[in-house]
Amino acid sequence: MCLPGNGNWWCRSLESNALNIANALWWEEDTLCLLDQTRLPAEEVTLHITEVSELIEAIRKLSVRGAPAIGIAGAYGVVLAARPWKESSHPPDWEQLTSEISALREARPTAVNLSWAIDRMIRTVSSAHPPSRGAAYDAFLAEAKNIHEEDEERCRRIGEHGAALLSETSQVITHCNTGALATGGIGTALGVIYAAVMQGRQVQVYADETRPLLQGARLTAWELQRANIPVTVMTDGMAASLMDQQPIDAVIVGADRIAVNGDTANKIGTYQLALTAHSHNVPFYVAAPTSTIDPDLETGREIPIEIRGKSEVVRWGNLQTAPEGVDVYAPAFDVTPNRYISAIITDRGVVRPPYNLRSIL
Amino acid sequence: MCLPGNGNWWCRSLESNALNIANALWWEEDTLCLLDQTRLPAEEVTLHITEVSELIEAIRKLSVRGAPAIGIAGAYGVVLAARPWKESSHPPDWEQLTSEISALREARPTAVNLSWAIDRMIRTVSSAHPPSRGAAYDAFLAEAKNIHEEDEERCRRIGEHGAALLSETSQVITHCNTGALATGGIGTALGVIYAAVMQGRQVQVYADETRPLLQGARLTAWELQRANIPVTVMTDGMAASLMDQQPIDAVIVGADRIAVNGDTANKIGTYQLALTAHSHNVPFYVAAPTSTIDPDLETGREIPIEIRGKSEVVRWGNLQTAPEGVDVYAPAFDVTPNRYISAIITDRGVVRPPYNLRSIL
Repeated sequence: MCLPGNGNWWCRSLESNALNIANALWWEEDTLCLLDQTRLPAEEVTLHITEVSELIEAIRKLSVRGAPAIGIAGAYGVVLAARPWKESSHPPDWEQLTSEISALREARPTAVNLSWAIDRMIRTVSSAHPPSRGAAYDAFLAEAKNIHEEDEERCRRIGEHGAALLSETSQVITHCNTGALATGGIGTALGVIYAAVMQGRQVQVYADETRPLLQGARLTAWELQRANIPVTVMTDGMAASLMDQQPIDAVIVGADRIAVNGDTANKIGTYQLALTAHSHNVPFYVAAPTSTIDPDLETGREIPIEIRGKSEVVRWGNLQTAPEGVDVYAPAFDVTPNRYISAIITDRGVVRPPYNLRSIL
Repeated sequence: MCLPGNGNWWCRSLESNALNIANALWWEEDTLCLLDQTRLPAEEVTLHITEVSELIEAIRKLSVRGAPAIGIAGAYGVVLAARPWKESSHPPDWEQLTSEISALREARPTAVNLSWAIDRMIRTVSSAHPPSRGAAYDAFLAEAKNIHEEDEERCRRIGEHGAALLSETSQVITHCNTGALATGGIGTALGVIYAAVMQGRQVQVYADETRPLLQGARLTAWELQRANIPVTVMTDGMAASLMDQQPIDAVIVGADRIAVNGDTANKIGTYQLALTAHSHNVPFYVAAPTSTIDPDLETGREIPIEIRGKSEVVRWGNLQTAPEGVDVYAPAFDVTPNRYISAIITDRGVVRPPYNLRSIL
């Protein structure tokens, strides 16, 4: 908690309001507020979500995205489902709730965090046998806020551990969006950058646009610009040229899943960026909460790679960018082998090779 | 020349009409016909150019692009300027011609081939002291056709030399567009692929979409699909993932300028692709005519890199893909150091490291 007079970097920064960091989502007057990421960077529109069906639609449309942010949204979704219970003294009737929650879980079936958060919400309240609907509602809301705050805290710790790796003035390349828009806090890889800046360091960020969905150009650039952190957008094929032209101090990326040996699945393009960093002797860091480490995966070879639809690569709004019917290679993620990763920055500290990540779980 | 009964691979292929290779431009009934590349891949539209002003517009709009193709178009442009002279017995009046040709030269000031072709056209006719305007016109047309045929022949030779490097079945990655659409013949890097297929080999091509202008997705995919060569489009950050997932036999790219030591300037993204190939032990070939070798450049460090406008990276049609005012890194080219280039395929043969390219000039 950031109490008045608490002298750590985080609280000092918040007090001085040095950075204007975005929020992906927040709870306000019985409503889940989502910054509609489909409208960025052109417009800053807040969605006021009061029904589970609206949240499902928002998740499907990617108005909210990023595994941690989706998990938190799902937790608040359970609160929305229980809204009719608020201040009621009747005993809980689970049937009505169950169908709404099942639908919510299916909003994005591959998002592990969504199911994880929903399960945790249900477990908390059902095990507590609340005496009334009102008490159940209050317990749901408290737990959703816990989930949100825990994520915020994890981001803060990742930021603190990672910032120590950056010097007073740094030029950093990042990929995709791993910031406030993807989490309940300051983010993972971008969290490291925010933390360094809050500690008074100067960071110039180069953001890969991150084809096909352009999370780097659309979201990372928007977030950093808003926070007054210098940011330059480039296409995904430019990092090698940039490293050749000027000194780059680090590459920092997020992670979707990390094997015990450190092999890391992340947004497509990450592996190529890691090879490029390796060739130029630029440190390559992965920043992620320990929950991203999968203790059941010994190596990255076992990580299944989601294949996305063709249209993400060959359509742009209404424009067709390749001939009709052409084949497309469209993996959503790639796996960076551990030998190209200089360190993994987690909420429990920085881990260096050789990696045996079970040791920090 | 491809005479009946000539048994070489090129003529056999043309006779059997095995491939339906596109044409960027051709001369027909006193008219320069250009395939309008701004309309591809959606529509196949031919521009019928009869005035120099129309050609200038077409070059500016990138309806015709690729250094060799622009050079050939410029040569035909001089013919268009001299069209009023056709069949006239009056002596040439150079004044009228000169202003049109100066304007043509400025259509794309950085395109060295354009000035080179125009100079050659003027030199040929002015030195020949033609007795009449009609004779001058005929000499211009003959020289433009020479320039066109010479480029066609160079592509054919590059293709022949390069095809020998591919085995019976090959998976090849390429970048940008270096095919029939960029040259007066079958192309350079794509020329190698066409030649291999014409010789009966099977080639599966993976085409980098090539941000920011998407020449790979728009043009290379269209050309190869039309020629019935299997082609798969991918974003520029996917090559490392692809090489990790399946065997790739070669990367073949073109070149904008090659230093004597083999360092090669080519479309942005090429260098990163070369590093990726190197990390996976995949041969990385540059295919280009010897005219691309600059004998005045000892190393790639001396090659000036054109910086393009921001809007190419952060706008897509009417869509803004990054926040207003964001900084953009937008080099048009990068330089691949010679140590990452397995061989340079030219019209005069294949050169291997250590490179001293003066030896083949």
